[in-house]
Amino acid sequence: MMPTSSALESSQLLVLASASPRRRDLLASVGIAFSVVPSELPEELLPGETPREHVLRLSREKATQVAAQAGIAGRWFLGSDTIVLRDDTVLGKPRDAAEAADMLRSLSGRSHQVISGYAVHDRQRGVTEAGAVQTTVWFKPLTAAEIAGYIATGEPMDKAGAYAIQGIGAFMVKAIEGSYTNVVGLPLCEVVELLERLGAIRLFDPQG
Amino acid sequence: MMPTSSALESSQLLVLASASPRRRDLLASVGIAFSVVPSELPEELLPGETPREHVLRLSREKATQVAAQAGIAGRWFLGSDTIVLRDDTVLGKPRDAAEAADMLRSLSGRSHQVISGYAVHDRQRGVTEAGAVQTTVWFKPLTAAEIAGYIATGEPMDKAGAYAIQGIGAFMVKAIEGSYTNVVGLPLCEVVELLERLGAIRLFDPQG
Repeated sequence: MMPTSSALESSQLLVLASASPRRRDLLASVGIAFSVVPSELPEELLPGETPREHVLRLSREKATQVAAQAGIAGRWFLGSDTIVLRDDTVLGKPRDAAEAADMLRSLSGRSHQVISGYAVHDRQRGVTEAGAVQTTVWFKPLTAAEIAGYIATGEPMDKAGAYAIQGIGAFMVKAIEGSYTNVVGLPLCEVVELLERLGAIRLFDPQG
Repeated sequence: MMPTSSALESSQLLVLASASPRRRDLLASVGIAFSVVPSELPEELLPGETPREHVLRLSREKATQVAAQAGIAGRWFLGSDTIVLRDDTVLGKPRDAAEAADMLRSLSGRSHQVISGYAVHDRQRGVTEAGAVQTTVWFKPLTAAEIAGYIATGEPMDKAGAYAIQGIGAFMVKAIEGSYTNVVGLPLCEVVELLERLGAIRLFDPQG
C-alpha cells in the first residue's frame, strides 16, 4: 500500500536493501528516513570480475532483488556492497579467530583498499544507477598482543578484513585517504547526492 | 583518595581534561576507562603562535590545569585541542547562523585542514608529553539550500568550522587525507599509543 500523506512520502519510499547495521546507522545519521529489507544474495566473486565490477554488480543485484519482491512498499531501493582489498586479494569475513589473526597480521603496518559500491533502483521507471568509491587505509604496526586482544573483543569476526574502523578497530588506523563513510560501509556524500538527484530524498526538507 | 583495587587501577587513574562529548565517545569507543574533568581555559591564539603551537600549548595547559586541582583523583591527565584552518585562517565556533553560513560557504568545494593537539600529564613524575596531528578535509560544492538546511539542524552552532564530520555534516565530506578521529576531536591511534607507552592504559588488558 502506497503512503498518501505528503509528509511521509519520501521517507516511506526509500528502502535500504541491506542487513548491515553500519549502513542503517550512516543513512540515519544525516536525517534520512527509510525502511530496511535485507537482500539475500550469495557474495562470491565471479570469474574474471574485478573488485570494482564485483561491488557494482552486487549493489545493483541487491537493490533490484528487493525491489522485485511483491508486498514490499517503496519506490527507491538502495543496495550496497563493500570489500576489503590487500594488493589484489579480497579479504572477506574471517571464519575463525585464526583467520582473523592472519588477516590482521597481513594488514599490519601498511595500506590496503576498501571499495564500496552503491546502486539505487527506481521501481517506477525500472532503471538503476550505480557508482563505486575507493578509500586507502593505513594501519599502524600491530603487536601480537594487540591482534590477540582485538580478536578477543569479538569485533573482527563478522567484519570484512577482520576490523571495524568505527569501533575498537579505530586504535589501529593511522590514516585514510578518501571517504571515511565508505570504509564504514556506505559512501554517504556520493549516496546522498545520487538519492537527491533521482528525487528519492530531499535532505533538510521539513517534510522529508 | 587513590583506588586500591588493581582491577580498577589503570581505569581510575586516567582523567580526560575536556568537556567535549566527542572526545569522551572516542576514548570510550576503544574500551578505555577514564573519568572526565573539564578544564577551564581561554582558547585565544597568542601573538606569533602558529596553529600547531597553539593546539600543543592548549593541550598541555588543559592537562596540567586539571592535574593541579586538589581533590581530583588520578595520575594521568589527557588534554586536547582541535582547530579548523582554512588557508591560514583559524575557524572557531560560529557566533550565529550568519557566521556559520559564511564559514560553510568558505569551505564549500575545496579542502581545509584540521589540527588536533593532545598532551598527557603524569602527575606523579610531573612531566607532560604532547603531539599534534593534521588532517586535510575535502567538502563537496554546497548549495545555498544545503547550507541553510544544515544550519537549521542546529548542528553547526557549537562546532569549530561550523560542522561535525561524525554527524549530519558527513553529507558534505567527499574525502579526507589523514586521521579521521583527529577531525572528530582526538587522534585516537596516536593518543592510545602515547597512553600505552606511558603506562597510563593497557588496551585489551582484562584488568584495564
